[in-house]
Amino acid sequence: MRLYLAGPDVFLPGAVQIGARKRGICARYGIEGLFPLDVEVETQGRAEPIFRGNLALMESADGGVFNLTPFRGPGADAGTAFELGFMAAQGKPVFGYSSNPAPYLDRVGVHCGPLVRHGQGWRDRDGLAVEDFGLSDNLMLAVSIAESSLDVYTVAEEGPEALAAFRAFKLCMAEIAARLTRWQSKESPHVQGSL
Amino acid sequence: MRLYLAGPDVFLPGAVQIGARKRGICARYGIEGLFPLDVEVETQGRAEPIFRGNLALMESADGGVFNLTPFRGPGADAGTAFELGFMAAQGKPVFGYSSNPAPYLDRVGVHCGPLVRHGQGWRDRDGLAVEDFGLSDNLMLAVSIAESSLDVYTVAEEGPEALAAFRAFKLCMAEIAARLTRWQSKESPHVQGSL
Repeated sequence: MRLYLAGPDVFLPGAVQIGARKRGICARYGIEGLFPLDVEVETQGRAEPIFRGNLALMESADGGVFNLTPFRGPGADAGTAFELGFMAAQGKPVFGYSSNPAPYLDRVGVHCGPLVRHGQGWRDRDGLAVEDFGLSDNLMLAVSIAESSLDVYTVAEEGPEALAAFRAFKLCMAEIAARLTRWQSKESPHVQGSL
Repeated sequence: MRLYLAGPDVFLPGAVQIGARKRGICARYGIEGLFPLDVEVETQGRAEPIFRGNLALMESADGGVFNLTPFRGPGADAGTAFELGFMAAQGKPVFGYSSNPAPYLDRVGVHCGPLVRHGQGWRDRDGLAVEDFGLSDNLMLAVSIAESSLDVYTVAEEGPEALAAFRAFKLCMAEIAARLTRWQSKESPHVQGSL
């Protein structure tokens, strides 16, 4: 089982070590974690080879685990969102986790508030409608994960490594491992897009 | 030719009218524009049917045109990024446009600056590395479009409809139409993933 480990972790100081730690957590369950930076080192930091390298990693993976912790605003990193869409289109199982348990609506209130009532919904300070489904992020992201696995795993975390969301990641990996064990013990045929 | 019209336009006041205007611009070129809100009206604003409806629209489209104008931060809307990844994985041609011509690095400087030099690169005020490829957004988004079509089309625009980026959209559609004409006149086999 090979899982692509997507997220804004690659932008954190010590990203290489963070990737190694996440791969180590995967290895405890006999899972191979694929971290985007492993590719980046070989590509000397040029954009096109990084893009192609990440695509190749996703193509080679059996599923994806997505760090949806808010990045430079109220929602998930756009690069991570791109990769979630890419793997959802491949029909592979996708999982999500985050160190921020607040619903998307509340986070938009913090970053782009105050929110104002508009009919049945809400608008932000720029007059833009805010999704109000009680979800953790934009519905395309949150529902793709809900339909494939479960809700996004969240464990509140603060400090310099909050963006890596290690606690929620560990919870998510334990759940993936438990599902994998149940699935393997049943020896049932693999259902595409879910575990 | 059916093109999916992705973007944060759906969150703007008057989104239904904006969608109708964009579909009208497509129609001038004999192209059918598919706007996500057309689905939403039928789904009574529930998250799962909107998700499935948008997926069905993308499945039925021949390609996608993505509004990457920054949304609630320095970069593109995460829902739009998800859909770009989804259609890129399908091997369909993807185009991009924006009303903000500044490179991603500069926009991060505005939203999350001041930027600080770190080795060959830059870090934002939170110590997070900032991509410095001269691209319009996160490399996964920008390169997926560059590899499929051309760079993201940008025309600076301000005011209440800047997020809809009509000027850049018109430029992008004119270019798509010109390519379509060239392609049809050559009667060459369709190259998957590009026009």
